[in-house]
Amino acid sequence: MHSSSVNCIRWENNRLVLLDQRHLPVEETYISCETAAEVAEAIKSMVVRGAPAIGICAAYGMALDALRLHGQSTALLTAAQEMLAASRPTAVNLFWALERIRRLLSQASEIDANLLIAEAHTIHSQDLQANLAMGESGARLLAETGPGNVITHCNTGSLATGGHGTALGVIRTGYAQDLVRHVYADETRPWLQGSRLTAWELHQDNIPVSLIADGAAAHLMKTKNIRWAIVGADRITRNGDVANKIGTYSLAVNARFHGVKFMVVAPTSTIDFAMESGESIPIEERSADELKHYREYPLAPSGVDGFNPVFDVTPAALIDAIVTEKGIVKCPAEQGMAALENR
Amino acid sequence: MHSSSVNCIRWENNRLVLLDQRHLPVEETYISCETAAEVAEAIKSMVVRGAPAIGICAAYGMALDALRLHGQSTALLTAAQEMLAASRPTAVNLFWALERIRRLLSQASEIDANLLIAEAHTIHSQDLQANLAMGESGARLLAETGPGNVITHCNTGSLATGGHGTALGVIRTGYAQDLVRHVYADETRPWLQGSRLTAWELHQDNIPVSLIADGAAAHLMKTKNIRWAIVGADRITRNGDVANKIGTYSLAVNARFHGVKFMVVAPTSTIDFAMESGESIPIEERSADELKHYREYPLAPSGVDGFNPVFDVTPAALIDAIVTEKGIVKCPAEQGMAALENR
Repeated sequence: MHSSSVNCIRWENNRLVLLDQRHLPVEETYISCETAAEVAEAIKSMVVRGAPAIGICAAYGMALDALRLHGQSTALLTAAQEMLAASRPTAVNLFWALERIRRLLSQASEIDANLLIAEAHTIHSQDLQANLAMGESGARLLAETGPGNVITHCNTGSLATGGHGTALGVIRTGYAQDLVRHVYADETRPWLQGSRLTAWELHQDNIPVSLIADGAAAHLMKTKNIRWAIVGADRITRNGDVANKIGTYSLAVNARFHGVKFMVVAPTSTIDFAMESGESIPIEERSADELKHYREYPLAPSGVDGFNPVFDVTPAALIDAIVTEKGIVKCPAEQGMAALENR
Repeated sequence: MHSSSVNCIRWENNRLVLLDQRHLPVEETYISCETAAEVAEAIKSMVVRGAPAIGICAAYGMALDALRLHGQSTALLTAAQEMLAASRPTAVNLFWALERIRRLLSQASEIDANLLIAEAHTIHSQDLQANLAMGESGARLLAETGPGNVITHCNTGSLATGGHGTALGVIRTGYAQDLVRHVYADETRPWLQGSRLTAWELHQDNIPVSLIADGAAAHLMKTKNIRWAIVGADRITRNGDVANKIGTYSLAVNARFHGVKFMVVAPTSTIDFAMESGESIPIEERSADELKHYREYPLAPSGVDGFNPVFDVTPAALIDAIVTEKGIVKCPAEQGMAALENR
């Protein structure tokens, strides 16, 4: 079983130690949080990102304030919970993790710090276990088509999760089983998660990776023996449509055109069973400045407008398989996600 | 007739003055070339880029050495010709322009500098006239589908040509005729010609433009009433396949998937009648450093590899029309480019 060398969320001496992803790949620095407020600030300022990772950190954030308020009324933790909930209001896993902690707190009137620390550890390790399970499931799909090269988009690795990763977890497990020969990583404009984070993780693990411009994917699929495109998900609707980082949909269209198979890897907590289809997913648009600058350097004339959607929706019809910790849905367009609802 | 305000290739006092495109959009600076070697270096280092512009500059480069060697043996210009021919491998206009100069030289034994300067001026002004004619032809295609939004890739404007532009020339003429409502410009990684050059040109001309990440094109085509994708070409083979900036092929695949029409705009000097299909086109690969750095800033870990092809090939089957100064080829997959050979 292949796991990652990156350990970006660590509980050490009753502190939460986080790899500061803002400085990657230039510097590998860590920050230490002693309060829920510091964790909320770390989430808000993108020290840590990736929906599963944010959920895990929020749970540890609650544990930190529980330590300070050990033995006192559980009502005193309401402020910490609200602060953490407000740190990234779109991350579904954040609310899910905070809800788990809230339920635990509701069972007693006094704060038991050890209970909250244990729960945070459980949330963390369950996420890692889910990723390892998805890695094995995804690798079985890779085995069906035989060894070859893969392409991925954005960052879905240890930096975004409790360890191993979702799509990158499948790639890690697939590489360990000699099913993945070479990884091509979309640089993923405008935030460059592919360059800064995915390339960094794979390089640390000595998995052969080449960075490409997002627009080079079609040329790559025509010339480089790509068997699978493997991506994560921010939200999956009932019919199997997938919202993920902008550029995913373009990759899926190109994959279908070139006969490259398309795999989505995400825990079941990503599935929004209440939403029928991807057409209902609100697509966040961020400032054009993200396109127009790199750090202080202008990339475009200052007066020019930009259109900067953060996510796009890949219709189920373009997806060959959705891999979750509870099982694989092949051809989601035919059956949707309902089969996973009550597992 | 709408023409551009940008004048990036100028012959002044027997020198070739070039807008240094590497510093756009931050600085508008010019360099002055006095020899063919300096012009070759300017082409190689991307002071000037764009297939037609490269051809024009190569002709002026020959004129510069002709001035220095005026009255001497034409054989002395062979070195300059070879140096210029080696400056960029994919742009067929470069070889076409040098061939025009070579034929002129072959008619005499002594170098007549005035003849070469006049020929360079003719190549330059013919390119501008061709672009204005293509602008009108392309606009007639836009009129067939009615007013709407368009997407373009890379830079094909005044900065890439003798003026007005090829694909951007059609957009300029189309905008003047109220057939183009809004232009979406792919930023065009890794060199960001879309951000730095196309957005700059359109902004100068007050044509409404929004910059997008290359990966956002599919989402855009689904949501923003895009009627046409309009691009240039670096080389067109006999069967209608088109080599152009990396990312063009991905755009064409997405256009076909979304029912967006795909137009290629290029002078006939871009057509390589001797090459049967795009499979024979050599694709220039440049250093991964272009992906891994922006100016001095590292975007990726230093040890990571990158795959950085500069061009890709769009098969004729994905192209709805190829617009040249000698006429339009609709559905090039059905008839190829042969009809234009002897016009």
